Amino acid sequence: MSKILSSLKYPIVQAPMAFAHDTALPLAVCRAGGLGSLAAAMYAPDALAAALQTMRDEAGAMPYNVNFFAHRTPHADEAQHAAWLAVLQPFFAEYGLTQADIPASGGRQPFDEAALALVEQYRPPVVSFHFGLPPQPMLERVKNTGAEVWASATTVAEARWLEGQGADAVIAQGWEAGGHRGWFLDKDPNGQSGLFALLPAIVRAVKLPVVAAGGIADAAAVRAAADLGAAAVQAGTVFLLSDEALTKPAHRAAIQAAQPEDTAVSNLFSGGAARGIVNRFMREAGPANPAALPFPLAGAAAGALRAAAEAQGSFDFTPFWAGQNAARSQEGSAAEIVARLAEGLRR
Amino acid sequence: MSKILSSLKYPIVQAPMAFAHDTALPLAVCRAGGLGSLAAAMYAPDALAAALQTMRDEAGAMPYNVNFFAHRTPHADEAQHAAWLAVLQPFFAEYGLTQADIPASGGRQPFDEAALALVEQYRPPVVSFHFGLPPQPMLERVKNTGAEVWASATTVAEARWLEGQGADAVIAQGWEAGGHRGWFLDKDPNGQSGLFALLPAIVRAVKLPVVAAGGIADAAAVRAAADLGAAAVQAGTVFLLSDEALTKPAHRAAIQAAQPEDTAVSNLFSGGAARGIVNRFMREAGPANPAALPFPLAGAAAGALRAAAEAQGSFDFTPFWAGQNAARSQEGSAAEIVARLAEGLRR
Repeated sequence: MSKILSSLKYPIVQAPMAFAHDTALPLAVCRAGGLGSLAAAMYAPDALAAALQTMRDEAGAMPYNVNFFAHRTPHADEAQHAAWLAVLQPFFAEYGLTQADIPASGGRQPFDEAALALVEQYRPPVVSFHFGLPPQPMLERVKNTGAEVWASATTVAEARWLEGQGADAVIAQGWEAGGHRGWFLDKDPNGQSGLFALLPAIVRAVKLPVVAAGGIADAAAVRAAADLGAAAVQAGTVFLLSDEALTKPAHRAAIQAAQPEDTAVSNLFSGGAARGIVNRFMREAGPANPAALPFPLAGAAAGALRAAAEAQGSFDFTPFWAGQNAARSQEGSAAEIVARLAEGLRR
Repeated sequence: MSKILSSLKYPIVQAPMAFAHDTALPLAVCRAGGLGSLAAAMYAPDALAAALQTMRDEAGAMPYNVNFFAHRTPHADEAQHAAWLAVLQPFFAEYGLTQADIPASGGRQPFDEAALALVEQYRPPVVSFHFGLPPQPMLERVKNTGAEVWASATTVAEARWLEGQGADAVIAQGWEAGGHRGWFLDKDPNGQSGLFALLPAIVRAVKLPVVAAGGIADAAAVRAAADLGAAAVQAGTVFLLSDEALTKPAHRAAIQAAQPEDTAVSNLFSGGAARGIVNRFMREAGPANPAALPFPLAGAAAGALRAAAEAQGSFDFTPFWAGQNAARSQEGSAAEIVARLAEGLRR
């Protein structure tokens, strides 16, 4: 089903992680025999063009993935904005922030015409989407470039929907996963399941190859995912510890110390549900707060708070994204990390 | 560490499931080479004595497990009772129920002096606990019978606590598991993790053998759990489909049809957090409701409602416990189920 997957030396995908890396990490993963992913969603159009140029030039014949967000930008009314600001008010007061310090945008753009034009120009071998898929006419144009389209599913229903829309592979995102839940049909934590159940259920529900994500931090997890029917694995947190990632030292240290129960799924940082290491912001305002504006709108005010705190040397409002298997991650070059994970593919 | 585990033909434990079986199921599992478990928590003392007699007589030299609840019975004040009844009022009205129809007890007794006396008399080879452990003097008397003491952990912190208290094995209960969460230190859904992360984290955190629970429904899951360091597996939902279980036909059918997202963790049926298949009660009042009385007190009124609904042929208020891998379960004799799971132990 996936020519790309069969062409890889190792069916190991580096998860795209916005802000955590540039082109260096995905290129290193590609050179090591895995599939590197560029996280395109946080780039402005010019910067994205430059990054895609670098990926194409440096990757040569090696396959790589470019990931976009496929959410629809929501609207929030005055009352919603006021409710969210009321939650943040004590923290804003602490850092001397006012409403005037909030940027206009939450900073996360959905896949749009500009991005589509760049995909048509640079033709990455795989285009993956989080939060569903773009509208069908745009999706058709992506497929017409020859790219394989991969997308995340957090439930069996979402996997079936993706298959129906023409996806070429499904990324089964277990509840263990760090970062944003890719949910788009069933935005209900009660319906989210651990990879032990989600992976075999999706493998049986769709004909597409299934990529296991969530808790893939060492060779044992790779082996277990293969046992449960995964055609490939996608690892994120472990690559946050790679030499090539832009992860801050405090975040690296926190990842290696985090037990599963030290992480939680929070909507405070963007409005989307995302797993990170519990910090002061999550303890005092969440981890989930019903007043948070819908994704990505909450990120504007939360980002202002984060910037103000970081300027004073505090990470109390910085999301330290991490999956529940964070502590199984080890540092090293991306190539070393790929090689360690690949040990799990040996029988 | 565990003589019992090393003595088993297969390191496969049948999870104790109150109300779902009597002695027939655990005895059949023992005969098939696994470890059968009697769910003692729902028996009155006389009935428990009879069941323990049967287990001892029939098991002979085969090891078996007897499981108790180790919660402390909580107190709820008038206001709490009133709030819980207010939640149930529309359903009570629908079935013509009043406060007078609520039994005095939630029906789930913690391990007490009477149970301890029976353990001392019948000396089961393994005594396992859910919801923590009994007070240390009682635990010492259990250990003095020669029994191994096993207990459930839902976080690394709970596993370490159990080891410190003298447990002989830890059951790592992943978020996927059906029935009641065994949590006792960290009663926070945000800190609960999938088996992919919980199992390897607990294996590294304690020196005890770790039994993997949650989502163990087929050979592939057994193999994956072994990859992640499990010394044994504990399976529940799959044994609800066994010929020897008392599971109702409607519950059996629901299990086989349930996708992972069709289950949720609810506190409506007992006050404890327990995973079952989503039904009308969970949709309309939960799945979790902050007004539910603490475990096991909520079960009194919920049980009255369930009984009234069942009397009219409705299962809208009946808990259909099931794990997230329910649909991977297949019917058959307990021996056939043990044999199928044991395929996952072959390399």
